[in-house]
Amino acid sequence: MTHSVSTQIQLTARPVGWPTASDFTTVKVDLAPLSPGQIRVANEFVSVDPYMRGRMSAAKSYSEPFALGETMTGGAIGRVVESASETIPVGSVVLHQFGWRDVVQEDAAGFRIVPELPGVPLSLYLGILGMTGMTGYVGLTEIANMKAGDTVFISGAAGAVGTAAGQIARLLGAGRVIGSAGSDEKVALLTEKYGYDAAFNYKSGPVRELLAAAAPEGIDVFFDNVGGDHLEAALDVFNPGGRAALCGAIAGYNTTERKAGPDNMVNMITRGLKLRGFTLGSHLNLAAEFNEHMTGWFTDGKIAYDETIVDGIDNAVDALLEMMRGANTGKMVVRTALPVVANG
Amino acid sequence: MTHSVSTQIQLTARPVGWPTASDFTTVKVDLAPLSPGQIRVANEFVSVDPYMRGRMSAAKSYSEPFALGETMTGGAIGRVVESASETIPVGSVVLHQFGWRDVVQEDAAGFRIVPELPGVPLSLYLGILGMTGMTGYVGLTEIANMKAGDTVFISGAAGAVGTAAGQIARLLGAGRVIGSAGSDEKVALLTEKYGYDAAFNYKSGPVRELLAAAAPEGIDVFFDNVGGDHLEAALDVFNPGGRAALCGAIAGYNTTERKAGPDNMVNMITRGLKLRGFTLGSHLNLAAEFNEHMTGWFTDGKIAYDETIVDGIDNAVDALLEMMRGANTGKMVVRTALPVVANG
Repeated sequence: MTHSVSTQIQLTARPVGWPTASDFTTVKVDLAPLSPGQIRVANEFVSVDPYMRGRMSAAKSYSEPFALGETMTGGAIGRVVESASETIPVGSVVLHQFGWRDVVQEDAAGFRIVPELPGVPLSLYLGILGMTGMTGYVGLTEIANMKAGDTVFISGAAGAVGTAAGQIARLLGAGRVIGSAGSDEKVALLTEKYGYDAAFNYKSGPVRELLAAAAPEGIDVFFDNVGGDHLEAALDVFNPGGRAALCGAIAGYNTTERKAGPDNMVNMITRGLKLRGFTLGSHLNLAAEFNEHMTGWFTDGKIAYDETIVDGIDNAVDALLEMMRGANTGKMVVRTALPVVANG
Repeated sequence: MTHSVSTQIQLTARPVGWPTASDFTTVKVDLAPLSPGQIRVANEFVSVDPYMRGRMSAAKSYSEPFALGETMTGGAIGRVVESASETIPVGSVVLHQFGWRDVVQEDAAGFRIVPELPGVPLSLYLGILGMTGMTGYVGLTEIANMKAGDTVFISGAAGAVGTAAGQIARLLGAGRVIGSAGSDEKVALLTEKYGYDAAFNYKSGPVRELLAAAAPEGIDVFFDNVGGDHLEAALDVFNPGGRAALCGAIAGYNTTERKAGPDNMVNMITRGLKLRGFTLGSHLNLAAEFNEHMTGWFTDGKIAYDETIVDGIDNAVDALLEMMRGANTGKMVVRTALPVVANG
């Protein structure tokens, strides 16, 4: 019996403001022999995502809060090392939501087999080929109703969802794509690697002024990963009929006091604007549509990506904190076991 | 030749903050004999509406700003006193957008004949049977996508659009209708005359607390005429999937400094909310649908209304200012000439 001990990260206190290591506990769990129908999976990558911060709080939300004293859930991908299932054999690569642990053992129904493609790191199924990429796709299409020719502004554009959204906007025919990011290095990456027409470092001045300069003819679509001053700046420059997909508000996730919102909400009326918040879980019906588009684009070599990889499940908390501080470019993942290629 | 002098109100300075009488000038214009195709109309009622404040500023908007030194435009209704038109005879009742004047003379193409129904004051075509009622209808249906059973919250509910919207929500099957208004008298009217299930005086405490108490099971739809703290309060109590139609933000129309927006915009993401601003001009395609519904409801005696009538075109500026201060219940109109019945 291999992989009989699972190292798992549990949330043991609800953070106030920034989470700290003391809000989490690492446990080692001895796994029982498989029951009929179960599989045991050695995870290769575990996803850390901004939305997880929200689930650490007890507030009303679409997703349930993480339970205290239970292992953190979330996307992960690994390989089946033992199977008592008729549907998922040993050696399969499977995607699941059991999250922050190096070994997981559950009924096979909780896993989905994904194809193992030559030269494609499995971590991409947590990123551009998975929920992250789909978040960009759904936000632009279903939520913001992007049309060919639109000027699209994406905040936090060098992050996991942002790098996906920018490329998808271009592939769907956006007229002009503008991005913001938190460092000059990331800004350079946006225009040089990801095909943005314009980009700015949101730490270099008031976002209101930076965006107005980058979008002299206004914007039609705003894909927001940041919130706060970015939304206010977008409301200033929206063209009539503009639409925003509010995906993340990472700027406010770890503040203990609520910050004031945009001072120009009245523009929504005079310009006939739509703002719509979303989480991917309500739009999983679009998975097949996304997969068809993204598989085509990826196979055709039209998708660039970056990943920021942190080694060791014990470092998952640090990875999450660094991601929320903006240390990552592209998707942040935790590598638990097998080595993989990490560039695109 | 009758009615050969027209008294007109012109905007002659762009107000900063609250408009004052000195921003307007009253002029008397001698009318030339009719040219072929023209008609001369003695207005009976001229509409004063919150959106007019926005058009007094020079800012980017769907509607053009009012031109300085030209007569204020807007809805009005009157009777044809002279006609050189083959399509609109003397005696017809006509609706038009030539606005703040007691006599208007223009090509017949700028007017629309409306039916004169026994016992129906012509002023209602500026209110519940006209643009005001249609604004309530469009906001609830097209913009907020109201469904039967929804809990609907309407701010500024005793105003012209609010009294229309509340009744339309009920007639379209709302489960519970909640309103806010600016005095105890108006609040009483909402529950006693307009069929609201609950109402509160927004000057009696923090709107956030008042709305939470009035909507213990949350709200699904918010029809906003006020803006500011009302939107923030709504974002607190929205159920997942909630939708807002942002119609007016009268709280901020006459402030010279921009006020901070809602501190809880992040709820839009976690609860999957939609906010959409609108002005009626972009949705005139729904006029036939609205007229069919409203005519049926009105004929069946299902529509109550109030009007606040100010006499004399010379008092139109005062009427507008009083309306923005909340002195009206229901639609505010200026009566220029003939006496009418004013209750419903």
